[in-house]
Amino acid sequence: MSASRPGEFDLIARIARRVQARGDVVLGIGDDAALLEVPAGRQLVVAMDTLNAGVHFPHATAPADIGWKALAVNLSDLAAMGAEPAWCTLSLSMPTPDAAWLDGFLEGFSALASMHRVALVGGDTTRGPLSVCVTVQGLVEPGRALRRDAARPGDEVWVSGTLGDAAGALSMLGLGPLPAPAIAADAAARAALHARLDRPTPRIALGRALAPHAHAAIDVSDGLLADLAHLARASGTGIEVDVDRLPASDALCALFDADARRLLQAAGGDDYELAFTAAAASHAAVLQAAAQAGTPVTCVGRVVAGQGVSARDARGAAWLPPRRGWEHFAD
Amino acid sequence: MSASRPGEFDLIARIARRVQARGDVVLGIGDDAALLEVPAGRQLVVAMDTLNAGVHFPHATAPADIGWKALAVNLSDLAAMGAEPAWCTLSLSMPTPDAAWLDGFLEGFSALASMHRVALVGGDTTRGPLSVCVTVQGLVEPGRALRRDAARPGDEVWVSGTLGDAAGALSMLGLGPLPAPAIAADAAARAALHARLDRPTPRIALGRALAPHAHAAIDVSDGLLADLAHLARASGTGIEVDVDRLPASDALCALFDADARRLLQAAGGDDYELAFTAAAASHAAVLQAAAQAGTPVTCVGRVVAGQGVSARDARGAAWLPPRRGWEHFAD
Repeated sequence: MSASRPGEFDLIARIARRVQARGDVVLGIGDDAALLEVPAGRQLVVAMDTLNAGVHFPHATAPADIGWKALAVNLSDLAAMGAEPAWCTLSLSMPTPDAAWLDGFLEGFSALASMHRVALVGGDTTRGPLSVCVTVQGLVEPGRALRRDAARPGDEVWVSGTLGDAAGALSMLGLGPLPAPAIAADAAARAALHARLDRPTPRIALGRALAPHAHAAIDVSDGLLADLAHLARASGTGIEVDVDRLPASDALCALFDADARRLLQAAGGDDYELAFTAAAASHAAVLQAAAQAGTPVTCVGRVVAGQGVSARDARGAAWLPPRRGWEHFAD
Repeated sequence: MSASRPGEFDLIARIARRVQARGDVVLGIGDDAALLEVPAGRQLVVAMDTLNAGVHFPHATAPADIGWKALAVNLSDLAAMGAEPAWCTLSLSMPTPDAAWLDGFLEGFSALASMHRVALVGGDTTRGPLSVCVTVQGLVEPGRALRRDAARPGDEVWVSGTLGDAAGALSMLGLGPLPAPAIAADAAARAALHARLDRPTPRIALGRALAPHAHAAIDVSDGLLADLAHLARASGTGIEVDVDRLPASDALCALFDADARRLLQAAGGDDYELAFTAAAASHAAVLQAAAQAGTPVTCVGRVVAGQGVSARDARGAAWLPPRRGWEHFAD
């Protein structure tokens, strides 16, 4: 081993230096396993997601953005359960040990971990094609978790933030469902969409605030209609979506026309917003919870008896996306 | 999608059908995250390890063996903590969705999961070079975990089972530290070594039985001397090993001469046996715990004041391996 080619243990030491401290970590990085104190009266919530180079992020993505996103997509799963994040583990495969790349990666990863007080407590670094696997552990009060199977006919359907920005950024990279927009002059708008693709915001505070009020929730990763279809199937209900009520960012409006926007918002994916349902009687409570969390929410549809997801535009005409929500293995 | 090219959700359904049931799983595969009941009076123990094709297992390895090993190396970490396994998550990257490969993989994975009552509660399947990442969660009584930093001068050093078999198998494949042995006729012995490489036995029952008696423990993955060096460093002690007392299997003895055996046993790695220390006064208690667990153990050295690991042969001469224990990123 040389100084410019760090070994596994040097990489682990670099990682250990950046770890968020938590009093409930009895034993963190450096043993065969981590040892953690779970508070009484809480259920454990566990999610795991992998990002592979060239599949989940373009090869040219900055290491800091990969670090942020690898944790963000996992925290987004905790947000969708209404859970509070606590700990995580990281398995990092790299073609060659690269300390500069790792430092960049850790900059993004640690920035998000600090924001949510998530302690990295273990994992491994190993040789292989670039791949980042993260497992997160969170905590939730018993009976309070937001599950996919808890939507009820009559519920309103809501989404947080805005939709379609990440898919818009992928389109601009030539990787999305649409060709790059003809209107290409607005550099600020383009940067805004790329930031949403590279640095998604896990809606942790919103999930926590909604847990007492919402029924079912899911995070929007495959595309709103595809994710709502998962939720409807799990709940044994149907869902009607008003596509012209889907929230769009100013940046998306600046770069894509109404038809393109609708497609990006309804089917684009990679938004990591929350889609959730709540009783119509909880409408005001939902708005208040969202205000408390500092995250805007928009009512975009309703849960109905039956099955499947249908979408209508403002004129009441049925709207169908030209393609399905993205599946990692779809042909 | 076609029937012969299953999508992500078809693969997940195949996985979900093979899951071990547990009463403490409130919500398993199929939501954004799993929801688990942690019993009162237990600490949570978390380990995560990835196996990459061509790095951690030869490309030709049978899918069932990969499935077994991916879980086994993680359970081995729980064993080294004295923990009882409970749940796991699996992230599986495959170049193309392959239902037949997955069924083989699940056969090995599920066989071991059932033996230890481990419930698979989540994870993801995704496109990418073949890679298997597993996170396991276990439980341990507070204060009972076997840590690397708890060895004390005067402790005896023990190992479970036999050492060097997996490294012997790698050598026979032309992948280990030694050329394939000249004595190649003993097919049963060769099969025995390959079985130890492909299907390591996590020493869960032994770890549980030792938790009240042992001081420090580690599982032998990098090679005994390298792993004892981690343990000595964490404990601020030295360790002396009697290399001629290291336990060898009949198969290893049939295929390798004494010099080769010593190297494979002391530095070969991939054994997934436990190396642990206990007070000399606990000698009988250790033997009784091992008998209760049905796993032989051998006293192979002692913890001393100072630092580093030294090894001596039966004549008292210093013994040094010609190479260091394997590091995933070593040059």
